[in-house]
Amino acid sequence: MPSTTQPSSASLPVTARTRITRMPERQRTDRAELYGILDDALVAHVAIVRDGLPLVLPMGFGRDGDSLYLHGSTGSGIFRAMASGTPISVTVTHLDGLVYARSLFDSSMNYRSAVVFGVPTVVADADKWDALRVVSEHLMPGRFAEVRDMTKRELAATLVLRLPLDEASVKVRAHGASEAADDGEDRSVWAGVLPLRLTALAAETSELTAPGTPVSAAALAYAARTTR
Amino acid sequence: MPSTTQPSSASLPVTARTRITRMPERQRTDRAELYGILDDALVAHVAIVRDGLPLVLPMGFGRDGDSLYLHGSTGSGIFRAMASGTPISVTVTHLDGLVYARSLFDSSMNYRSAVVFGVPTVVADADKWDALRVVSEHLMPGRFAEVRDMTKRELAATLVLRLPLDEASVKVRAHGASEAADDGEDRSVWAGVLPLRLTALAAETSELTAPGTPVSAAALAYAARTTR
Repeated sequence: MPSTTQPSSASLPVTARTRITRMPERQRTDRAELYGILDDALVAHVAIVRDGLPLVLPMGFGRDGDSLYLHGSTGSGIFRAMASGTPISVTVTHLDGLVYARSLFDSSMNYRSAVVFGVPTVVADADKWDALRVVSEHLMPGRFAEVRDMTKRELAATLVLRLPLDEASVKVRAHGASEAADDGEDRSVWAGVLPLRLTALAAETSELTAPGTPVSAAALAYAARTTR
Repeated sequence: MPSTTQPSSASLPVTARTRITRMPERQRTDRAELYGILDDALVAHVAIVRDGLPLVLPMGFGRDGDSLYLHGSTGSGIFRAMASGTPISVTVTHLDGLVYARSLFDSSMNYRSAVVFGVPTVVADADKWDALRVVSEHLMPGRFAEVRDMTKRELAATLVLRLPLDEASVKVRAHGASEAADDGEDRSVWAGVLPLRLTALAAETSELTAPGTPVSAAALAYAARTTR
């Protein structure tokens, strides 16, 4: 596993581009909070500049220490572009709830979001296996041990990129409808929060699975985590 | 409401940047499918190029016909940048399930995603109210009728942008673990799909709501929709 060039501090530095100017009270600079937001998420939205224009695509990812890993096919155009050392922006968002205020203007959403900036580097072949395990354990914890090893051909077809978590902006809204007791709103209109969660439904077994095979413990553990 | 300059066709044109080259069998060109993906989502990830670098942020949005609307504060830097006519990329992703194949390489996710490209325009004051109603009905259906009207001051503080849905790329994976009966995998390893859904928990009432006020019908209707 590639180690980082410098030890991560407990706080995220606030730079010109990570400083939140809109609703600055929502900015968080605790590195542990960044890690928690990333670790709870399955999909990141990754933006690059291509031919001078913005492009943003969803991707699975993993995290280990202050490294974020993206994996994709060597046949993917955006992955080849990212591998050439172009700057990227990686954003992870959890929508935690809809906030029904007594006015449209104050209506909002509860969310946790992280925006990471940086230039990704290609993970060397010697470290690729470990980095892919990080991604696998992130997306499907426990599954790595349930399935066969990757073949050399599969490894060769997979590109893994590392993005250091050096520059990141974290923004969180986690409270009820914004209002003051003296703001003149009609209190007979209901206000509150509708919390939202990503939850798992019952696992659907592939018809090519041998009869009697129990559902993957990894899948069941993940499902249990989402319904806590 | 600003009308579109040309009637929308039933199919999305496939352009150089909307043609999907990786897993092309997942590309969809039905405009109704694009609309469905947008209408089911609350948050879009919007990318712009700022100082030559990519930036992607989450935003609420709304849709009416072949118009996508984004709303934000006149005090928001990214909104002011978008209002100046810079190209953007707007991506919506639904994570519908984790796909546990019998190999890591074939493991995947089921998803529906839409990537829209274009240059937003500022919605004129005369149309702002209608566009904000579209956004409100999208994010919190039925809430518009439950709350007071926006004030002139609130309207003036809100910037609404329209992005035409002229150029969009839709990609969908909606099936089980990719495998063939003769691929040599161990059938005693469970394979299948763990479906994921965004679901609402019980509504939390603001303490400033008058005692005895029933929970918003709009919030209850939304919650019922997520648990269907």
